[in-house]
Order: sequence, then C-alpha cells, then structure tokens
Amino acid sequence: GVLGSGDFARSLAVRLVRSGFRVVVGSRNPKRKASLFPAAAEVTFQAEAVKKADVIFVAIFREHYSTLCDLADVLVGKILVDVSNNTEINHHKESNAEYLASLFPACTVVKAFNVVSAWTLQSGARDGNKQVLICSNNQEAKRTIAEIAQVMGFTPVDMGCMSSACEIENIPLRLLPAWKIPIFLALGLFLCFFTYNLIRQVIHPYIREQKNKLYKIPIEVVNTTLPCVSYVMLSLVYLPGVLAACSQLYYGTKYRRFPDWLDQWLQHRKQIGLLSFFCAALHAVYSLCLPMRRSHRYLLIETAVKQAMEKKMTVWVEEEVWRMEIYISVGIIALGLLSLLAITSLPSIANSLNWREFSFIQ
Amino acid sequence: GVLGSGDFARSLAVRLVRSGFRVVVGSRNPKRKASLFPAAAEVTFQAEAVKKADVIFVAIFREHYSTLCDLADVLVGKILVDVSNNTEINHHKESNAEYLASLFPACTVVKAFNVVSAWTLQSGARDGNKQVLICSNNQEAKRTIAEIAQVMGFTPVDMGCMSSACEIENIPLRLLPAWKIPIFLALGLFLCFFTYNLIRQVIHPYIREQKNKLYKIPIEVVNTTLPCVSYVMLSLVYLPGVLAACSQLYYGTKYRRFPDWLDQWLQHRKQIGLLSFFCAALHAVYSLCLPMRRSHRYLLIETAVKQAMEKKMTVWVEEEVWRMEIYISVGIIALGLLSLLAITSLPSIANSLNWREFSFIQ
Amino acid sequence: GVLGSGDFARSLAVRLVRSGFRVVVGSRNPKRKASLFPAAAEVTFQAEAVKKADVIFVAIFREHYSTLCDLADVLVGKILVDVSNNTEINHHKESNAEYLASLFPACTVVKAFNVVSAWTLQSGARDGNKQVLICSNNQEAKRTIAEIAQVMGFTPVDMGCMSSACEIENIPLRLLPAWKIPIFLALGLFLCFFTYNLIRQVIHPYIREQKNKLYKIPIEVVNTTLPCVSYVMLSLVYLPGVLAACSQLYYGTKYRRFPDWLDQWLQHRKQIGLLSFFCAALHAVYSLCLPMRRSHRYLLIETAVKQAMEKKMTVWVEEEVWRMEIYISVGIIALGLLSLLAITSLPSIANSLNWREFSFIQ
Repeated sequence: GVLGSGDFARSLAVRLVRSGFRVVVGSRNPKRKASLFPAAAEVTFQAEAVKKADVIFVAIFREHYSTLCDLADVLVGKILVDVSNNTEINHHKESNAEYLASLFPACTVVKAFNVVSAWTLQSGARDGNKQVLICSNNQEAKRTIAEIAQVMGFTPVDMGCMSSACEIENIPLRLLPAWKIPIFLALGLFLCFFTYNLIRQVIHPYIREQKNKLYKIPIEVVNTTLPCVSYVMLSLVYLPGVLAACSQLYYGTKYRRFPDWLDQWLQHRKQIGLLSFFCAALHAVYSLCLPMRRSHRYLLIETAVKQAMEKKMTVWVEEEVWRMEIYISVGIIALGLLSLLAITSLPSIANSLNWREFSFIQ
Repeated sequence: GVLGSGDFARSLAVRLVRSGFRVVVGSRNPKRKASLFPAAAEVTFQAEAVKKADVIFVAIFREHYSTLCDLADVLVGKILVDVSNNTEINHHKESNAEYLASLFPACTVVKAFNVVSAWTLQSGARDGNKQVLICSNNQEAKRTIAEIAQVMGFTPVDMGCMSSACEIENIPLRLLPAWKIPIFLALGLFLCFFTYNLIRQVIHPYIREQKNKLYKIPIEVVNTTLPCVSYVMLSLVYLPGVLAACSQLYYGTKYRRFPDWLDQWLQHRKQIGLLSFFCAALHAVYSLCLPMRRSHRYLLIETAVKQAMEKKMTVWVEEEVWRMEIYISVGIIALGLLSLLAITSLPSIANSLNWREFSFIQ
Repeated sequence: GVLGSGDFARSLAVRLVRSGFRVVVGSRNPKRKASLFPAAAEVTFQAEAVKKADVIFVAIFREHYSTLCDLADVLVGKILVDVSNNTEINHHKESNAEYLASLFPACTVVKAFNVVSAWTLQSGARDGNKQVLICSNNQEAKRTIAEIAQVMGFTPVDMGCMSSACEIENIPLRLLPAWKIPIFLALGLFLCFFTYNLIRQVIHPYIREQKNKLYKIPIEVVNTTLPCVSYVMLSLVYLPGVLAACSQLYYGTKYRRFPDWLDQWLQHRKQIGLLSFFCAALHAVYSLCLPMRRSHRYLLIETAVKQAMEKKMTVWVEEEVWRMEIYISVGIIALGLLSLLAITSLPSIANSLNWREFSFIQ
C-alpha cells in the first residue's frame, strides 16, 4: 500500500508494479488521482487501501502525518514505512520516523527508501548508490522491507534500531560536507601563489625588460603554482597531529576532548591530503607536457641556431644537468608514495587493512 | 553431506574437509567413486549419507533431481543446498532451487555456492570475488549455510527470499553483458576515424606529393583518432538524457516507460562514459610520448640546421605558441574532470555518495 | 559496563559516553582510578558495576580472566564482550573469547572491537577501516553489540559463530603478510638489474673510453632497470599456474594438494602482479620525463650545431624512427592492459565480477 499522490508516491508505485508487487494506492480523492498512477495499481480511498495492504508506504509530508489519525483503527498491526525527508539537517527534534511511531504506537514503523530519489525509483537503480538504508526496532519488519528493496533492485543495508532514523534522514541533505573547507582552502592557496608567480614570471620581466612572456600564463605559471599549493596542503595534513600531541602533553592526558577547531581540522585531513595529491598529480602532467609545447621547440631551435652561428660546440652545464636529474627522480618517487596513500584511502582498500597496516602506510 | 560425484561435488568435499567439517558423500556406486574423494570424506550409499548429515549439498544436475525422490523419507527436515547452475540464462521457467523445493516440500531449500567455481572451491578463495550469494525462505537455514561459507573462507551475502534464486542462477552465466555494445561501438568508431585519418595523414600526402609518411601510422594516426572516438562517446553519454527529457515533454508525463532502445541506451551510459575516459587517457599518454620519438628529434635537428644555414635567427610564431599552450591546458583540465567522474564510478566510492552528491559531480 | 582501567578501557568509556550511553566502570580500586575516566562514567567496584549493566566489556588481559571468577554469580545471564588481543599470532590454543566463554558458561560471550585501536575509539572512527568484526554463538547478543557499534559510528560486520574468534584475534597482528615476500623479491631483482645496468651504462664506458656518464644514474639507469624487474615479476605471476598444471598432469588428479612452496607462490600472485604493474607504471613515468631533462636538451643542441657546421641537412634514419614508434606504441598498449588487470584487483570491482568475467579479464 502507498499513501500519498506526490512525485515520490507515484514513482514508488511505478517501481513496485514493475517489480511484480500488487499495489494499492490510498488517496483522499481517488477518482481524480487514479490517472496519475500506473494502470496496474489500484487507486482507492485511504481506509480501503490500508485494509487491503500489510506494508504501507507513508509518502506524505511530516506536517500531514496527523491527518492519518482517522485511520488509526485500520492501521493496527501494519508495517508503516516512513520514506520522508526533511528540508534542513536536524530540522525537528525527533526524526520523522520516530514522530510517526509516536502517533501510531500500535504499528511497526520502519525507516527506509528516503535515500533514494524519485528518479532512481522510476528508472530503476542503475548508476550511483543502490543502497537503501533501513532501520527499525522490529527485526521481522526490517527483514520484510529489506526483501522488498532487494526485489526492487536495491541493496538493503541494516542500520540498526530506530535511533539511527535521524542520521538516515540527514543523509540525503548532505552535499560533500567534508570537502567544502578543503576545496576553498585549495582555491585560496592557488589564487595567492598564482598571483605571486604571475607577478614574478610575467609582469616583472615585462616592466623591467619589456619582454612579452604572456604565453607563460596558461601552463608555466600554473605549473609553478601547483607544487606550492600541494606542499602547503601536505603540511596542513601533518600539522594538526603535531598540535594534538602538544595539546595532550600540555594537559597531561589523552582523554581530554580537543578544541572544536582542532577536531574539525583532524577530521578534514583525508580530504586535504587527497587535494594535495590531486595538485601534485596535475603538476606531474603539466611538467610532462612542457616539451610538447611549440614555445619549447622554438626556444630549442633558436638556441641551436645561435650556437651554430657562434660556432660554439659545447653547451653542456654539468650542474644544470645534475640538478634536473635529481629534481625529476625525487619528484617521481614522491608522487609514487603519494599515490600509495591515495589508493589506501579508497573505501574498499581501507576496509581490507587493519589499523596497524593503515598506520604503517600512513 | 554431499550428493553427487562430479567435479563440483569433489571440489566441495575437498574444501569442506580442509575447512574442518566432517563430510559424508552419497553416491550410487560408493565403491567405485570412493577413490575420487579425499580420504577424510566418508563415501557411502545416498540413503546412508542423507541419514548421517543435517546439511546436504545437492551437487547433481537439475535433470536428475527427480531421481532423489526415493530418498524423500530420509530427507524430511534436512537442509538441502542447491548449488546447481544452468547452461543458458533463464533456461527454465522456475529456478533450479524452486524446482527442488517443489519436489521436496518437507525440506528446507537454500540456494548457495553456485557463483563459486569448482577451481575456487578446490584452491580456496584467493583472488577475485569471494562472495557466496545465499537465498532461502528460511532464516535459520540461511544463517547455517552462511556460517559454513564463512568457515570455508568465503563472504556470505544474504540475497533475501527464494524468489532471488533465479537471479542468482543467472549470475555465473553473465559475461560483462553491459560492456558488449559499448565496446563494439568504440571499436567501430575507432575503425572509421582511423581510416579517415590514415587517408588524410598518410595516403593523401603520398599520392599528391610522393611523401613517405608511413612512420606516422603507429602513433600519430592513432593519436588523432583517439580524441575523436572519445568525443563521440562522451556525446553519446549525454544524448539519451536529452532524448528522454524530450520524450517526457512530448507525452506530458514522467511515469511512462521509455521505448526499449532508449532504456537500453540509458542503462549503458556508465560503460560508454568509462570507455570515453579510457580513450581520453590513452590520447594523453600518446601525446606525452610524442617528444620521446626519434622522428621528433630528427625533425627538430633538421629545422635547426636549415635555420642555421639560412642564418634565420627567429622562428617564433606567436599564434602557434598560444594555440598549443591553450590546447594543452584545456586538455589537462578536461582529463582531470573526466578522472573525477571515473573515480566516482568505482562501486566503493559510489556507495559512499548520496544521490544529491552523485548528481552534483555528474 | 566496562571492566578494566587500562588504555583501551578508558578509550572505550570515553567513546561510549560521547555516543550517549550510560557507562559504569568496574575497578578494584575505584577511588584511585575514578579520575582517569570521563566524569559522566560512574566508577565503582567490579561487583557493583556488573550488577548495574547488561552488557559488559571485559577490557582486561587474558591472564587475568580468572580473577573475574569471584563475580561468576552476578555475571549470570549477562553479555560479556571480549575485546582482547594477543601479542603473537595463534599464541594460545583456543582464542581468548572461547577461553572466557569456558570460564563463564552462564554468560553469553561476544567477540568484538578488538580490531579497533584505542586511538580510533577515543577520536571516533574517521579514516581507515571503520569495521568492527563481531562473532558469537548467540544471534541476539551479536545483534545488540552490532547496534552499539553502529551508534558509536562503526560498521558492524557479522563474522558468524564463535569459531571465527581465533581468526578475528589474529587480524590486528597482521602487517601486510602477503606483501612481504613479493616486496623483498622486487627489491632483490631491482638491485641485481641495477648493478648490471650501472656497470654496462656508466662504469664500462668510463673505464674503456674515460667518458663521464655519472649523470645517467638517477634516471636512465633506473629507467632501464624497471622494465627488467617488471618483466621478471610478470613471468613469476604466470609460472606457478603452469607448474600447478604440470603437477596435476603428473599425478593425474586435480584434487591433490600442491606442495607448500607452490601453494604459497600461487597465493602471492596478485601481489607480485601488482608490483609488476607498479614497476611498469614507474617506467612509463620515467620514460615520459626523459625529454624534460637538461641533458636531453644539450645533446640535441650539440647534435644540431655539429650538423650545421658539417652542412649535413638530413639526419633521418628510417630504421631508428620505426623502432622507436613501435616500442612506444606496444609499450602503451601493454601498460593499458596491465592497468585493466590492476583495476579489477580492487576489492570493490572484483566483488562485482563473477568468476567467468574475472577469468576472462585475467
């Protein structure tokens, strides 16, 4: 049974019908709404629908839950599935599912399907996350809903008892929260270093010697900026650990909570580290592209022609040669090590390591 | 208990014995077959074996299930594990496990271990997929089999009730079905563009100016072909979404099923996108290799010598320089973004994103 | 309830309090130890603590389990959570959890949380593995502990019945055991080939022609060494399969156990293959860096100047050109194929392939 006639209710009915379930839709105005639902779904009055179904998806807004109180008698003993989402994180004190359970103590309430979008329901689970997070205080009801989710093509995930409902309701509102600060940090650092390098490599030579080196902006200036950003970000990964250790030494205990800013910082280390790796990898690609450029070719030919005209045979500068060989080989080794760190941060790799192995690699 | 004496039955017995279980094998001709099984496994007549065991692995073909009907009495109350596979997808109307359950209504049937190969059973779960998919209508029996699988070194996965058996039986017959069309598409596009570029870069100059440029085939022609394929594939990722939107606007509803060809296309988008990324990445590697080639070196030296003999000092062409700088930097940024998409398509990353984050990145 | 006052007990208490649980700590000397625990946790005598709690975390060493025997009466019917670890793999005959269960047959023993470090407990599950492996012979107790782990921010993983306890206790002692031999093998091979290439490319020309080519050591010598290591490692991946097949043909059976050394070798194939890929990838990066070096630039200019002075226009050697074009294009294709193998060895990708697909790709 599905209560509601909104977008989600309709998509849910479509998917349930296509997965081979018998669907009864409960609506206050079944005649007008019937055309919105697939033909195979029976659309009838709410009380009728509830009587015919054992599992009832409550696809209406939290604000209207109380309108269902008239159905309290027929709902007794049914499984109510709360599929609702909020518009803000921690909008209400208690989660929607817990609120529903408090309104209908004679029903078994299960929180599920809220992490799935109406579009995914309609078109079937294809790309992205196919998980349906389920929680309930009743094991049997949870298992029933898990099996329905399985048949619908989703991967049910048991999230324990009803106290997880709040967390599950917050998930769809999340938009990469752990990445916001690190990304703005990286952008800020990039802008600072880019400005400095622009002045140093392009504007200063232009003012002092009237040399037009504007062509350096898209690649060379960016390429000298990236490793600076990467280094600063990498040091920001290791700094909070040192600060935390100092704080523990100062207070003489390991069990004191860190100040909030330090705690936040410690939590963002993985993201800062990955952005540092991303900048380092981009720097590698940019550097490898340097000899492909026309400007490189022209400068090379010009030097050769100049040498030939001056009849100078040797151009070899031993120090320059060594400097470059060492730069490059140290750079490759550093990138290789960073890659290893980046790979172990993949969830499926991290889950196969114990903490001793993880610490060893870090 | 294991019924059967085929390859799978023997491998199963080997693995069960090595995992510390007591194994009884039921055979029609125990004397002749005993030598095929490990010494620790007791080989006896079928009825004997069934009496001694609580969990019975039915390692015989579906066609011979009915021969077990003589054992119906001794089988009462036992757990039967159906490990069979079919030779074709959806070969029979009902799954093997459901057929077995219909023959022995007094037994508890569990579908399991069919996704594991005889070789993996013999040698132990090492590489690849260690999952054993399990389904049954009986929770307790499912848990028993899950624990046996765990002790044998596999990862049991609960696939819900018996209606999943058909799906589980189809899994081992699958050979990358979602990749077939995208790969042939990519190969077809590659051939077309390769032919065009071969004519344009090698055959045409040869006919018109008698210039031998055959050396361009292995790298340069391939390298101009790859981005063409990549672009077309990328547009084929986004086109079906537009067509779907048009279809929805035309019919005035979101809840109508798309035509089959469009549905198929929508389902292959991920694979097409990954192949587009693969071509783009190969193009990047090929381009980076260009300055390593001898031909590049020779052409450079020849130009320099020519310039020196003509006493021309400047070879700088501002437009060419700028064009190349912009090409390369835009290319690097595009590849960086495609990499991000490719990484989020890894199952373990996709599972950690909600649909809002996934849509945002896409 | 938490019994014990060590580092782990305190971290556990901190995390439980922060996750909203009521915590009672049982200590022999509650007055002296109280200051070590968070203020919200009640610290009292052991018998008192046990009476007040339903779930008791036993955070004391295996050696002191017997000291709890005085509490046997009050412990009846409680859930005991064994969180202990050993200092050596398979130190004792039976696992700590099984030993605890044998001491207190009237309690339900659950093995859990031993794979989590005290530091992770204190600071909350952030990076790395958030899994808590749980095993017990009692389903209900296992579910209770799983829900506690969930609320604490960990991912509970059901590892089946108590017989898995030994395996779970060995996990935290593991330090990449499968990687040790392959890494030493790779290092050994690297040293051998490096010495050979050093003699050939640097020392020999120096002795014979007094040419100083020391600058080649950091990049060129390493770069000719890496593909040698990669090739030998790759052949070591495929060799044991051939040996295993020969052994099977020789003994005329597939069901005989391989000799230990071959079994070990077969088990290390994945790691050897990944190291082979790592060397191949490093070789690609080193090769791509070759034209960036100053030495490359100087040699190029020197050749151009020499040619210009000798008035030789053509430097083109068709054979050299072709050789290089073919080397590079075959190298790129080989690296592309190895990348595919490396990607399918990621746990989350491998789990989405059936064995037919996995074998096909391999």
